[in-house]
Amino acid sequence: MTYEKIIGIGGGVGPMAGVILHQKIIENTLTNGTDQDHLEVHHFSRSSDISDRNLFLLEGIGDNPALGLIRTAEIAKHVADYTNKGIVFGIPCNNVHAPSIINPIKEAILQMEPKIKFVDMIGETVSRITTEYPEISRVGLLSTSSTRKIGTYRKTLEPLGYSLIEVEEDIQEQVHDSICNTSWGIKAQFPVTEKARENFERFAKMLKDQGAQAIILGCTEIPLALPQTEIYGIPLIDPMESLALGLIREANPNKVKVHSKQAVIQTVK
Amino acid sequence: MTYEKIIGIGGGVGPMAGVILHQKIIENTLTNGTDQDHLEVHHFSRSSDISDRNLFLLEGIGDNPALGLIRTAEIAKHVADYTNKGIVFGIPCNNVHAPSIINPIKEAILQMEPKIKFVDMIGETVSRITTEYPEISRVGLLSTSSTRKIGTYRKTLEPLGYSLIEVEEDIQEQVHDSICNTSWGIKAQFPVTEKARENFERFAKMLKDQGAQAIILGCTEIPLALPQTEIYGIPLIDPMESLALGLIREANPNKVKVHSKQAVIQTVK
Repeated sequence: MTYEKIIGIGGGVGPMAGVILHQKIIENTLTNGTDQDHLEVHHFSRSSDISDRNLFLLEGIGDNPALGLIRTAEIAKHVADYTNKGIVFGIPCNNVHAPSIINPIKEAILQMEPKIKFVDMIGETVSRITTEYPEISRVGLLSTSSTRKIGTYRKTLEPLGYSLIEVEEDIQEQVHDSICNTSWGIKAQFPVTEKARENFERFAKMLKDQGAQAIILGCTEIPLALPQTEIYGIPLIDPMESLALGLIREANPNKVKVHSKQAVIQTVK
Repeated sequence: MTYEKIIGIGGGVGPMAGVILHQKIIENTLTNGTDQDHLEVHHFSRSSDISDRNLFLLEGIGDNPALGLIRTAEIAKHVADYTNKGIVFGIPCNNVHAPSIINPIKEAILQMEPKIKFVDMIGETVSRITTEYPEISRVGLLSTSSTRKIGTYRKTLEPLGYSLIEVEEDIQEQVHDSICNTSWGIKAQFPVTEKARENFERFAKMLKDQGAQAIILGCTEIPLALPQTEIYGIPLIDPMESLALGLIREANPNKVKVHSKQAVIQTVK
């Protein structure tokens, strides 16, 4: 039997994002049809210990959210020691992957290797674009205003030679609103409202018209409005799905569902 | 600040049931709208360590699934000791609540008190019927054939003076098939097929016609076909939701969403 690792989810950022990641892990795990053939997943949803990401990133208010997430990794390390198993650890939040938050987390987890290994959501997403769509050089991004402002994807993609394409400044407000509006935004209503869905189709069309050859859905909520794998003939890339596939691969490479090309991709560090 | 406990999910039975329970916990938690105000939830999804429930219950094959779930509780206990917090622990599976499986688990967890406290899904469900619908004496049950055969709900309800009403023997096969059929059953297709949905509406009608005053959806999949809270004027009781509410109440009674009458209910032991 292969030495299979536990998948650890550093959850609570936000609480539902962790649940969606967990679901995507189950859906993308290759099994023989029995419950017993699924991977072991430990989801530590610890929102109350993790400071507000937006306040910290945009206004410098509060503790670094890294602190609470490092405490989560320490709990995972403790479970790894107790069960004598390795843990591959991922965090389902775009804002947490801003350098000022993710770097201290990565450094702390590096000290816990080989018991804990970190799988980077942005790295997995970019790795997927590089290997699944080698012909692409112009990548679109739909995200909240804070992810855009921080430039998490831009800073990763541009050094690799990609152009990052975003909607015009005055449209960005509409994108943000279509996610966060408390009456009709994606966060507010499930199933997603017709208005939010139509808006995202329109934003995707704009990016395509600006030259995007693929679009990253850079906020965990956007795939609820754009659940399809492509639109107007260009692929939609869901970072949460990339993270799920990366975690499965690192836990047991034989368990990545074959429908995905991700199976053979190695993590971009 | 109230001393708030961690919610522990003994997951993996099956993997998606734990995810659904986690989602129901989030949806039923009263918060001030911030992520930070959510409860801490640790979901240990350990399917590979837990033997097949149906094989054990119906054919006596394999280890008692209790063994793996007790190991899960031990991991939770370890986390409780490490974090110096209490854990309220629940298992989102009807078959696991059969006496031959659940009793050894309860005994093992009793040894871990007060650090770990068990919340019983069947007890929560019955407690809800007793307190929310005091006028009811005839309770319908829709479930898989194994839950029916084992009589988990019957053995809990009848000593309390309730009559348990199930579909006719020859219809039970259709109920089981509507859950498990690999081409059109609830487990096989999401969104649920029209056929599965219509079948469950028909089964619910049968139970009502046989005198049921409420119906327990005694399989974690059935609420996908019958998501409404009542049908033909009688309430539909979802044990998974009852468990979610019970876990929130035991973690912090102030965080149970007020839309539910469950807030003031105490656990039936």
